[in-house]
Amino acid sequence: MAPFRIAVITTGGTIAKTYDQRKAVLRNADPVVKRLVRSLRLEETKVSFKELMQKDSLDLSPHDRARIVETVRSTARRSNAVVVIHGTDTLSETGEALLAAMPAPAVPIVLTGAMVPFVVAGSDGLQNVTEALFACRLLAPGIYAVFHGRALSFPGVVKDRETLTFVRCPDSPEGRP
Amino acid sequence: MAPFRIAVITTGGTIAKTYDQRKAVLRNADPVVKRLVRSLRLEETKVSFKELMQKDSLDLSPHDRARIVETVRSTARRSNAVVVIHGTDTLSETGEALLAAMPAPAVPIVLTGAMVPFVVAGSDGLQNVTEALFACRLLAPGIYAVFHGRALSFPGVVKDRETLTFVRCPDSPEGRP
Amino acid sequence: MAPFRIAVITTGGTIAKTYDQRKAVLRNADPVVKRLVRSLRLEETKVSFKELMQKDSLDLSPHDRARIVETVRSTARRSNAVVVIHGTDTLSETGEALLAAMPAPAVPIVLTGAMVPFVVAGSDGLQNVTEALFACRLLAPGIYAVFHGRALSFPGVVKDRETLTFVRCPDSPEGRP
Amino acid sequence: MAPFRIAVITTGGTIAKTYDQRKAVLRNADPVVKRLVRSLRLEETKVSFKELMQKDSLDLSPHDRARIVETVRSTARRSNAVVVIHGTDTLSETGEALLAAMPAPAVPIVLTGAMVPFVVAGSDGLQNVTEALFACRLLAPGIYAVFHGRALSFPGVVKDRETLTFVRCPDSPEGRP
Repeated sequence: MAPFRIAVITTGGTIAKTYDQRKAVLRNADPVVKRLVRSLRLEETKVSFKELMQKDSLDLSPHDRARIVETVRSTARRSNAVVVIHGTDTLSETGEALLAAMPAPAVPIVLTGAMVPFVVAGSDGLQNVTEALFACRLLAPGIYAVFHGRALSFPGVVKDRETLTFVRCPDSPEGRP
Repeated sequence: MAPFRIAVITTGGTIAKTYDQRKAVLRNADPVVKRLVRSLRLEETKVSFKELMQKDSLDLSPHDRARIVETVRSTARRSNAVVVIHGTDTLSETGEALLAAMPAPAVPIVLTGAMVPFVVAGSDGLQNVTEALFACRLLAPGIYAVFHGRALSFPGVVKDRETLTFVRCPDSPEGRP
Repeated sequence: MAPFRIAVITTGGTIAKTYDQRKAVLRNADPVVKRLVRSLRLEETKVSFKELMQKDSLDLSPHDRARIVETVRSTARRSNAVVVIHGTDTLSETGEALLAAMPAPAVPIVLTGAMVPFVVAGSDGLQNVTEALFACRLLAPGIYAVFHGRALSFPGVVKDRETLTFVRCPDSPEGRP
Repeated sequence: MAPFRIAVITTGGTIAKTYDQRKAVLRNADPVVKRLVRSLRLEETKVSFKELMQKDSLDLSPHDRARIVETVRSTARRSNAVVVIHGTDTLSETGEALLAAMPAPAVPIVLTGAMVPFVVAGSDGLQNVTEALFACRLLAPGIYAVFHGRALSFPGVVKDRETLTFVRCPDSPEGRP
């Protein structure tokens, strides 16, 4: 049986920050997500990596966001699913941009990341990436954020800065009671 | 919004073995799965625990298996999903017994466990339980084994003792090409 | 037999930084060293904790340093050894200040810390604290820095910002070949 | 300055047991101690490894013990210190045998190991090996067991099967009050 092909596109974000001893700060420098994914056991699955950029998502320019959208679009053509590792602060903007560019994608496109860097004890990064990769097999084609045990589909997914997770925006059509 | 209710029933198995310093062996003694689940962040989810037994699954008697089936049946009535933590050696038998007793369950019933105890470095236990809990929200009602990035539905799911994962049995109806 | 009494005085420093999800920075906020020490098994040893301050050592004022010296002096009277957890950037100044105030201490006084926070993967904090506590039993009375497998006695111990460890200062009497 | 040379001789023991998924048991198979030591940062120190055998110490024959003694003797000639990684059940016999063969060794010879395998969460192995390597620089020449924050010198060091640590034997000369 042909393996299920998941393309992982990394853009940086909190999840991928590592500690710089010399400058005594956390920063985006190393391919930490690749190591994280390789620590998982994924049967009949072929994961490929595209390290697109290493940025805090607050620093993404319109040009950066356009590059992410174009890379997802071209990658989606030759994969069964795409996972985008992204900073949480502007993940919502990228999700909406992806939906605008690809209103009916052929495969599931899952955005994920973390509130705490993977290298820091108690990080939610391993959980979120485990869930995102698993979700690729079960979700219908569409654009999603996967965090903290849930898959939420765009449009209308935002970061809740109070509870530090992703929620359906109260103003979005699906979000209304 | 009402939280999603997942009932976790623990029966022992390799995943829950801890090290006994005095006897120098791994054995089923402590509620390790509860600690594992509590280390995850699960939004709008209420997880309850039922510690049914602490056994290596090779030691499960017909009576034990009947108790598991009865507990799943009664728990399923008041939950949105049920996760059964189980040893891998006879997980397949329990899955088939559940299906025989509940051919059309109202909610997803997910069996999982691990090839390596959670307390041992490199364990697949955290990954499998993370996936099992996440799968509860996406799977249709049915009986499943969730391991190593995949959800496989009963009947016809067996442990492959060569590759040490779960696979669709070559003789099962869905397993035929 | 009376247990060996070690007083641990915490002042903050890189070793004790934890991740603040809301501000997305590492900062000194939690009693992480206590947790670290309690994870060790120390036979016939009684460890007491004095949480004096939680500061990056670059932010220590002359008044802060005087408080550290006074606390070490009073604590040393009722302990068999004193460990001071300290940021690495000005650990050398505190070591020299301790030596000036206590040229002939009655017990070993050991300064330690880390180049990488304890909560970050690959931290040297657990190693340094394990060594510092162990050194308390073997070292003669004096003022020491314990880092990366070595005990170096004041005066003349400095942070080498190139190799990111502590070394004997090339200009110090004992440092000359 | 010439680095401090520590020779690590591994013989197996609980500390080095890893989990065999196929047989579902812990056993001595892999060079786990080398990985443990390499995770430490040891300044101006050169550690060499001699993997002598991989045995539970209850399975050591008189011939095995003689080999250990001979290897320690020859290794001690070209090192500043020797660390022997050993199972705890017969570590005491090997310590006494070393002392009988080398009543006045030229360097410190330190036996250590663990009550819980290094790969199991909560293991004392990392602590004991960190302490043993550190002790090499501070101890006078002699034969020692280093465990749980203490260095105890042979003769008269035994495993206390009640508290699961090493203690001075009540009947030994130094052990008498």
